[in-house]
Amino acid sequence: MATFEIPTEQWAQVVEATGGPAIYKKIPVQQPGPDEVLVNVKYSGVCHTDLHAMMGDWPLDVKLPLVGGHEGAGVVVAKGSLVNDIELGDLAGIKWLNGSCLACSFCMTSDEPLCANALLSGYTVDGSFQQYAIAKAAHVAHIPKGTKLDEVAPVLCAGITVYKGLKESGARPGQWVAIVGAGGGLGSMALQYAKAMGLNTIAIDGGEEKAASCKTLGAKAYVDFMSSPDLVAEVKAATPDGTGPHAVILLAVQEKPFQQATEYVRSRGTVICIGLPAKAYLKAPVFDTVVRMISIKGSYVGNRQDTQEALDFFSQGLIKVPFKTVGLSQLQEVFELMKAGKIVGRYVVDTSK
Amino acid sequence: MATFEIPTEQWAQVVEATGGPAIYKKIPVQQPGPDEVLVNVKYSGVCHTDLHAMMGDWPLDVKLPLVGGHEGAGVVVAKGSLVNDIELGDLAGIKWLNGSCLACSFCMTSDEPLCANALLSGYTVDGSFQQYAIAKAAHVAHIPKGTKLDEVAPVLCAGITVYKGLKESGARPGQWVAIVGAGGGLGSMALQYAKAMGLNTIAIDGGEEKAASCKTLGAKAYVDFMSSPDLVAEVKAATPDGTGPHAVILLAVQEKPFQQATEYVRSRGTVICIGLPAKAYLKAPVFDTVVRMISIKGSYVGNRQDTQEALDFFSQGLIKVPFKTVGLSQLQEVFELMKAGKIVGRYVVDTSK
Amino acid sequence: MATFEIPTEQWAQVVEATGGPAIYKKIPVQQPGPDEVLVNVKYSGVCHTDLHAMMGDWPLDVKLPLVGGHEGAGVVVAKGSLVNDIELGDLAGIKWLNGSCLACSFCMTSDEPLCANALLSGYTVDGSFQQYAIAKAAHVAHIPKGTKLDEVAPVLCAGITVYKGLKESGARPGQWVAIVGAGGGLGSMALQYAKAMGLNTIAIDGGEEKAASCKTLGAKAYVDFMSSPDLVAEVKAATPDGTGPHAVILLAVQEKPFQQATEYVRSRGTVICIGLPAKAYLKAPVFDTVVRMISIKGSYVGNRQDTQEALDFFSQGLIKVPFKTVGLSQLQEVFELMKAGKIVGRYVVDTSK
Amino acid sequence: MATFEIPTEQWAQVVEATGGPAIYKKIPVQQPGPDEVLVNVKYSGVCHTDLHAMMGDWPLDVKLPLVGGHEGAGVVVAKGSLVNDIELGDLAGIKWLNGSCLACSFCMTSDEPLCANALLSGYTVDGSFQQYAIAKAAHVAHIPKGTKLDEVAPVLCAGITVYKGLKESGARPGQWVAIVGAGGGLGSMALQYAKAMGLNTIAIDGGEEKAASCKTLGAKAYVDFMSSPDLVAEVKAATPDGTGPHAVILLAVQEKPFQQATEYVRSRGTVICIGLPAKAYLKAPVFDTVVRMISIKGSYVGNRQDTQEALDFFSQGLIKVPFKTVGLSQLQEVFELMKAGKIVGRYVVDTSK
Repeated sequence: MATFEIPTEQWAQVVEATGGPAIYKKIPVQQPGPDEVLVNVKYSGVCHTDLHAMMGDWPLDVKLPLVGGHEGAGVVVAKGSLVNDIELGDLAGIKWLNGSCLACSFCMTSDEPLCANALLSGYTVDGSFQQYAIAKAAHVAHIPKGTKLDEVAPVLCAGITVYKGLKESGARPGQWVAIVGAGGGLGSMALQYAKAMGLNTIAIDGGEEKAASCKTLGAKAYVDFMSSPDLVAEVKAATPDGTGPHAVILLAVQEKPFQQATEYVRSRGTVICIGLPAKAYLKAPVFDTVVRMISIKGSYVGNRQDTQEALDFFSQGLIKVPFKTVGLSQLQEVFELMKAGKIVGRYVVDTSK
Repeated sequence: MATFEIPTEQWAQVVEATGGPAIYKKIPVQQPGPDEVLVNVKYSGVCHTDLHAMMGDWPLDVKLPLVGGHEGAGVVVAKGSLVNDIELGDLAGIKWLNGSCLACSFCMTSDEPLCANALLSGYTVDGSFQQYAIAKAAHVAHIPKGTKLDEVAPVLCAGITVYKGLKESGARPGQWVAIVGAGGGLGSMALQYAKAMGLNTIAIDGGEEKAASCKTLGAKAYVDFMSSPDLVAEVKAATPDGTGPHAVILLAVQEKPFQQATEYVRSRGTVICIGLPAKAYLKAPVFDTVVRMISIKGSYVGNRQDTQEALDFFSQGLIKVPFKTVGLSQLQEVFELMKAGKIVGRYVVDTSK
Repeated sequence: MATFEIPTEQWAQVVEATGGPAIYKKIPVQQPGPDEVLVNVKYSGVCHTDLHAMMGDWPLDVKLPLVGGHEGAGVVVAKGSLVNDIELGDLAGIKWLNGSCLACSFCMTSDEPLCANALLSGYTVDGSFQQYAIAKAAHVAHIPKGTKLDEVAPVLCAGITVYKGLKESGARPGQWVAIVGAGGGLGSMALQYAKAMGLNTIAIDGGEEKAASCKTLGAKAYVDFMSSPDLVAEVKAATPDGTGPHAVILLAVQEKPFQQATEYVRSRGTVICIGLPAKAYLKAPVFDTVVRMISIKGSYVGNRQDTQEALDFFSQGLIKVPFKTVGLSQLQEVFELMKAGKIVGRYVVDTSK
Repeated sequence: MATFEIPTEQWAQVVEATGGPAIYKKIPVQQPGPDEVLVNVKYSGVCHTDLHAMMGDWPLDVKLPLVGGHEGAGVVVAKGSLVNDIELGDLAGIKWLNGSCLACSFCMTSDEPLCANALLSGYTVDGSFQQYAIAKAAHVAHIPKGTKLDEVAPVLCAGITVYKGLKESGARPGQWVAIVGAGGGLGSMALQYAKAMGLNTIAIDGGEEKAASCKTLGAKAYVDFMSSPDLVAEVKAATPDGTGPHAVILLAVQEKPFQQATEYVRSRGTVICIGLPAKAYLKAPVFDTVVRMISIKGSYVGNRQDTQEALDFFSQGLIKVPFKTVGLSQLQEVFELMKAGKIVGRYVVDTSK
């Protein structure tokens, strides 16, 4: 078994007050408890949720001071006495779900993301914007040896989330799925997962540039919400029999698509909500929902099994995520770009810089 | 094989113009086509939908002149050359779905109620408010010999519909289901089907009288929406672990419960919409729906298999429907009571009077 | 929070060599690890598996010296530092699955009984034939306050196992299930669970006495394998449409029923194997299995969620288990009766005597 | 609408006595009944079942004299008065299931292949080895305009059957499936369908040549049953975690694989039986089946929806079937090759020659 020298201090990005900023500074390295591991984080993806955590603008209390981050990929360097399923030297991922009770009715039925006592990385416990992060051993993602850790980082949240949504949709290989917001970061991963799962996709987004990238990633059709004279009709027409897609995956950050998707989904179809536009409401006419037997369903993050499956697709080379690497020290700059809406693709921070 | 003398004329209730009234008069008896049966209707339940059909106030075109009715129980007295699955003398039920194409993607997957070419009894084709009604042989309900036809009539629409909703909810024996509108006609059947299916029910309705009847029909708890200071809290508290029911069945005819049910359903739970309040909308916050992974699902009428299953429970003596019988000639009086909101329980018309 | 005085020594039944006997003696009380609880066992059911463990005649290595027992009901009197889901003073059950890794692909998908590192009570770790037993906190059954511990003990293995089998069968409320070995201990519980789940049962066993008890427990039909001239025909005839039950639950301890059940199960039906006759084989003709699309499926013990559900049915008063109580000191006598095949119903040992 | 001149006589291959031969001769063209279509068959695949029908060596009575064939692709040239779902000039496929009652419990639940009154093309009714064949309109396969009819013919039985088996296995995208007999006609289609469905395949067959063809068709691993020192170990080792495939598809025509597959399938996995070796039996140890919770399941032909889905995959260009075309007049020669075991790939007969 490998052994590791663990420093007592490390570099981290710490949010000390609501609203930020994130401060790059040295903090102590923690020791793992009996059921925990210590992960030497090499790379961590940066997600909009990290900005929300810093700004404190979600209806969910955040830890302070806080080390954010929940897409951390690294190496297990220490573990507690009860940990048998992972070894020192193994690659591991710190994901949104840092831990859960493993004993409530949700944990017992593989719905641990719904556990009332779940620990959330970079939100209710310190996350992956540091060189050494703690996680419950039963919850870290197992990353196969040889994986490039910068490439896999964004899979740990964005990838798992869209894969879970596709599973929850119940769409089977050969069926049609509309991806709303297909041109964004989550959307580009959703298109690739859908393809790997044998699904036919209709990409919905705005602009020529996104049309091109969606087609490249395997979309069978592209509907431009900015230029379409009748989006509902166009989405339906994109399916071979004209009755609309079997499922819709809502990754949008505006409210409108959440109120429109039931109009173009096929009868008996399923609309999956993933995106979280602020203060948005689902809305659909009762009559149409009933006589067409439509389902509307929320999908949160994946469970541990979904995590491993999402990683398997990545490991087979089926999922490519465009990303840009900067040093962990530059995190606040990434947040500034995010606030300004200037981010295309995913940023990954390198904890060694 | 039995043989029957079939008259050339019969009594029927005919709506000749939108808005009614229904006129009791003699009309010719039709001959069944090759794939049809002629049913000598003995009794027919009267449903609110029949009033809607007469008033023409739904967004779906109605046949005119129209013989309404879609809960008809009777005897097969003639059949077409292709009909092998039912014999003359067999008991049969005319239900909402009079026929469907049996070959589209919905019919092929047992979702014939969603067939674009479905024939609707008492709406797009003549129904059961006459002594001899036509139906597609593959769609008539098979009623076991010896069944009391007046008692079974309301099962043919109300019973099937609530049973289907309970199936669609995915609730398993031992789990908890809230029935909204439990004290009404559909509600009382829903409570009984739920009990027969091993489900624990929380009845939601208004008033002491309904509380008593719901308890009698097996409800484990009753929540009074008229007097409860906090309905959401009370429904959750009625489940053993306080996290709310696994499913909610919405039979209400007001809009509010459709916008409230997601608040008390358990995380990962399912809200089933069946009731059709005019112009009502579903509404739910996106954030809560996503992070609690809630499903909202429309459930229309049952398919043919659901029909037979719903009848099986009835035949085992597990479903009792309170009803009042009047002559077919008095149908317009029943409609007048309905308009005035003065109906308690179900009316059944006897076609011999 | 309650506190408890825990002795350093306790009475236990210890098997010191393969073949037994179990020796009643004083042994030290253990301390729970960080993720464990110490349960003061009040009553423990005695199962045939306990005899197999002592005799060492199964193809699975057994711990030695061994304290057997895996149907232990008691009170939590101590717990480790990581345990948050159960409190001192809570009632808890020691079941066959004492612990599992909670992190492998089976544990992650709620199939912890298939975990390669599962700990088995009274087999690979010490079980409930002692006054103070250790179990992983995440695996103990949570027993509601006020439950009679002697009555609930047999539910912890026998009850869970038959309930799991009924779930695995996929039979839905209103469908028909044949229970092979319905007159035995597991069978009598299976009949009650099936009824509580809305299923119609056909009991299969031998003799008049068992006929009577099966009918009392709710069986809709009884087929006597000892006297039936044509068991296959008789089982099929017991279903309303004559095509056989939707599922078969094999609790038998002979091989023959395992090779016969596919003959009377309905097309598209499922045969569930639970009983473990020594060296027995399943056998079925390929042609018939294929063209009738029959499923044959093994069902082992329930997972933690199944456990809680099985207990819920018990708590509602729907499951009664006939049992006889003797002192823990008399365990070897129970084993002798078992060897002689002289046991009717379930024996429960009282650890205070 | 297109109109067609229909001759009164046509060329057909007629089996006049059990054992054959098939005789090429002129016979009358039939008229379709009210619910039937007349299909001008252009090409028909030749299947081993056709040889069994001629030889009468299956435990299922065959019509005599018989026109065999059940993979017929052609054009609708006449239809009955009740037929609305298909038009003259549409392309249609005659498949094994020529018709079914559409009203029994199996037909009502989309399991029409299990209908007790199913009509079987080229077995209980005349099939596609003639220029003009009759089929129930609700059952003919709908083939998209522009499809090459010789290429699609083998999909109508072989394709549908393997696709159905893969669906029945419950394997999800990303999981592993072993295909036993992967190098044969059905196997090569199974590998392609599996790939299109996002499944990873382990091909099992014998010899180097088959290894090469399986790899070309997308198999992730190949296990040679002729040369492997330990087939069970090798199949398990071919999965990333070494615990074996999630499902096994048995296309073999020997008995042994039917008794071996449960040894290498993963715990909780499913073994699907499709192949029909004469007089073969399934056999598996009860103990292992139970404690590993294995399912063994028969899968017959697909239903109508499966048919359309299987054709969709073909239409997307994902399924290629190697075949050789000869004239209908040469059918007996194909049977002779078949008897001699000299057929590689699929033969398709051209009815114009």
